[in-house]
Amino acid sequence: MIKARPIEEADWQEVWQIIKPVFRAGETYPYPMDITEDEARRNWIDAPSATYVVVDENEDVLGTYYIKPNQPGLGAHVANCGYIVSENARGQGVASEMCKHSQSEAQAQGFTAMQYNLVISTNEGAVRLWQSQGFKIVGTLTGAFKHARLGFVDAYVMYKELAP
Amino acid sequence: MIKARPIEEADWQEVWQIIKPVFRAGETYPYPMDITEDEARRNWIDAPSATYVVVDENEDVLGTYYIKPNQPGLGAHVANCGYIVSENARGQGVASEMCKHSQSEAQAQGFTAMQYNLVISTNEGAVRLWQSQGFKIVGTLTGAFKHARLGFVDAYVMYKELAP
Repeated sequence: MIKARPIEEADWQEVWQIIKPVFRAGETYPYPMDITEDEARRNWIDAPSATYVVVDENEDVLGTYYIKPNQPGLGAHVANCGYIVSENARGQGVASEMCKHSQSEAQAQGFTAMQYNLVISTNEGAVRLWQSQGFKIVGTLTGAFKHARLGFVDAYVMYKELAP
Repeated sequence: MIKARPIEEADWQEVWQIIKPVFRAGETYPYPMDITEDEARRNWIDAPSATYVVVDENEDVLGTYYIKPNQPGLGAHVANCGYIVSENARGQGVASEMCKHSQSEAQAQGFTAMQYNLVISTNEGAVRLWQSQGFKIVGTLTGAFKHARLGFVDAYVMYKELAP
């Protein structure tokens, strides 16, 4: 059994150990690969309007996501989220659970749509998962991501209107 | 004769008088319509990597634009710009001059592409102008902008690779 809940202060070290290798790898998120813990925390917890973890029955953290307005003011009804699953918890439906949870949270918080700004085209599993959850590729950004192994690759803008 | 140059401290009040009515109108930029001068300055000058003005032969400011990386780290080779023309200087080619200038500045600064994240679909003159400068609508964000007069309207993601 896994469940999503708001992050608590005590979760940060576990969360950092999960997101750090993903940022260091430079294959799915644009943050500088040498991002510091402080800067990561600012991006993952302070800047977003809310951050969540998915935990198992032992309260071990399996994944984490944030939610925030994608634009200020007149664009603030569109949410943006970022999701990361622990390398040790792949294939258990954690990303799927987070995506579903984020959509209902977003709706509860008054968002009417959700946008991913930079889905890396080579991250095929993620693209398929978001599509299975109703997100559409609405735009392709040619060479917009400098993949650590593959060099410049395309990125997608993905978007979904949230039914009221 | 108009020319673009980097903004100077003495330009701010003139720039603020140009961008303020545009933000107050809520038809083309997502910033809160009641944005304060300090917050506007942070967004237009402090956060971007560079800000420019277009002036006429009397050094009167006719327009202003900023340039910044659209994403951090591995997405920082794609530039983002915002442009505003003074209401008193429409139809003089100021926006076109700024768009051209921004592309050469972006290239000089090492950017290899330029992305506009939220071009309001009802801002037809701007859409046509960016298209005439080689930008393509690569994505449509349904209802992503809450237009002050028209309610929820679509916005476009526009993108152009900058030739080396």
